[in-house]
Amino acid sequence: MKLLTDSADVVALTREICDIESVSGNERALADAVESWTRATPHLTVFRDGDALIAQTNVGRERRVVIAGHLDTVPVNNNLPVRLSEDGTELWGRGTVDMKGGVAVMVRLLRDLTEPVHDITWVFYDHEEVAADLNGLGRLARVRPELLTADFAILGEPTNAIIEGGCNGTMRVRITTAGVRAHSARAWMGINAIHGAADVLNRLNAYEPETVTVDGLDYREGINAVAIHGGIAGNVIPDECAVDINFRFAPSRSQADALAYLERMFDGYELEVTDSAAGARPGADSPLAQDFIASVGGTIAPKYGWTDVARFTALGIPAVNYGPGDPSLAHADNEHVPLSHLHACEHGLRSWLTGL
Amino acid sequence: MKLLTDSADVVALTREICDIESVSGNERALADAVESWTRATPHLTVFRDGDALIAQTNVGRERRVVIAGHLDTVPVNNNLPVRLSEDGTELWGRGTVDMKGGVAVMVRLLRDLTEPVHDITWVFYDHEEVAADLNGLGRLARVRPELLTADFAILGEPTNAIIEGGCNGTMRVRITTAGVRAHSARAWMGINAIHGAADVLNRLNAYEPETVTVDGLDYREGINAVAIHGGIAGNVIPDECAVDINFRFAPSRSQADALAYLERMFDGYELEVTDSAAGARPGADSPLAQDFIASVGGTIAPKYGWTDVARFTALGIPAVNYGPGDPSLAHADNEHVPLSHLHACEHGLRSWLTGL
Repeated sequence: MKLLTDSADVVALTREICDIESVSGNERALADAVESWTRATPHLTVFRDGDALIAQTNVGRERRVVIAGHLDTVPVNNNLPVRLSEDGTELWGRGTVDMKGGVAVMVRLLRDLTEPVHDITWVFYDHEEVAADLNGLGRLARVRPELLTADFAILGEPTNAIIEGGCNGTMRVRITTAGVRAHSARAWMGINAIHGAADVLNRLNAYEPETVTVDGLDYREGINAVAIHGGIAGNVIPDECAVDINFRFAPSRSQADALAYLERMFDGYELEVTDSAAGARPGADSPLAQDFIASVGGTIAPKYGWTDVARFTALGIPAVNYGPGDPSLAHADNEHVPLSHLHACEHGLRSWLTGL
Repeated sequence: MKLLTDSADVVALTREICDIESVSGNERALADAVESWTRATPHLTVFRDGDALIAQTNVGRERRVVIAGHLDTVPVNNNLPVRLSEDGTELWGRGTVDMKGGVAVMVRLLRDLTEPVHDITWVFYDHEEVAADLNGLGRLARVRPELLTADFAILGEPTNAIIEGGCNGTMRVRITTAGVRAHSARAWMGINAIHGAADVLNRLNAYEPETVTVDGLDYREGINAVAIHGGIAGNVIPDECAVDINFRFAPSRSQADALAYLERMFDGYELEVTDSAAGARPGADSPLAQDFIASVGGTIAPKYGWTDVARFTALGIPAVNYGPGDPSLAHADNEHVPLSHLHACEHGLRSWLTGL
């Protein structure tokens, strides 16, 4: 088993954690390493479920805060092992932004914070980068909901080391155009389903994204084809073409509203919903959130991407995102995190949770 | 090894030959059965190359005719074994039209025609339904060209049991649209290559097929997308989308002309040619062709689809198509051949080649 280096600082830990490859479904080695790390920490009570881990302090504080992060990444694309930029200010490689920098901050702090001002539930989980029904945090909420009980949650997703509130919802639908199969030498006997998909793509090109203000924060929406597949053989007019469409919608829309929006946009087509997750309102008005915001600088920005803060919102726990890295680099092959973000997040959480 | 039934008529042979499944690449069992049949026929000299067979009469005639057919089919789709229609007039199932009915006519006749009025070279070959560079007839033309020498060729592809001359050419090109990858939660950071493909599909929808008259026969053209593929993951703006396009062009256009036509139509895109085969002019003015046309009724129609008559044309051998089945049903899951076509083609070839 790979072990994390005891003496490592947050930068060295980020490198080590990134270099334990953990593309969704392959989190075990990293979960083992983090489990070993937490079990060597006497003030924590540790639970494991699959490749998810929960480690709790129990120092009898009045309030409890969850600090959570996912262990998995999108597929590696020649961007591991991690490398330090030439000027020594950034770590480059898969996971540095989404979100092993945040995981490293958690790993770094969980040993030091033996007597935090609020009790802490550290949560590490699997399968965040794939379909919502596989999500490890969702699984924990179903099988061990009592372990997630808290007054406030902080998710270490990348936010440029500032606090971001709420998140957009996400929905995926499939539109399948139909045709009539024929030999391509006699195309007039058939109806080409790929040609039929032009209308779907034209509607996507005509779409103008909206920006929606929710609780004072501006949420930018987007509707995009994320996949298209059609074709049977090189000499056959295809009778089917499937377009997968992803809608990122402001947290003021329910999932039903989002679907109705897509149904209007694609009037005349049947929409098959293949994935859906609600957004979350900013949640900045809870006492612990206000306290945390004040502690790290007083501002909160909107989160565009869907994150698991929505799962905490659904559990009735106010939640925000706060983590190292530029979220616009998440999933990009050139993702890289400034070392200053890693230090800022470590410092911000440490200051708030020690009251110093 | 499966054997064909000695006493079987052309209808029974069609059923037996169709029921020996031979999707491209899996022709061996059928080639074995036909080889066994031809080797039991003393007046024929038999050659085998891979899963292709050549069987020649050598009765010293002044002229020689090739009669050829491919053994392979497109993939089976719940349409085997062959069944007889309820009214008893048609055989339904994969290969009945393209072109095991024609193969059955050849198999039926090659034993009977011991002293034909022209020497005959019977050719059965593999890999016709896949990329042109795999074609078994093309391979024979490269490795044993002397065995294909002839004054005239008849290909048993489906023509509704009439003579069809020449064939359209076929070319496949791939257009790949480019974009910039990004997380779909921040789509404005990327450029969606699938949305970019709308322009390619719109040009296909705007295309108006031409009908081109060549040597008095009308050839109908067509340009179609036969495949489209794009998409990386459900939350990624894709940076690539590939559209495969098939052009069926009149035999008056060279392959270079056809490519130039596509380049004008898709001006601004790079075209990657993935498959290409020239068409063939009707070839009805050779003495044997005129003799054959007169013998079976006096008319010749244009062939829309690409067939291997183009390979004979390229070898300097005039060639026509003549076989049972409606060519518009080729590759359709409901392909079916009237028994009357099987009898008509058997009779037409037998009459001409026996001079009776």
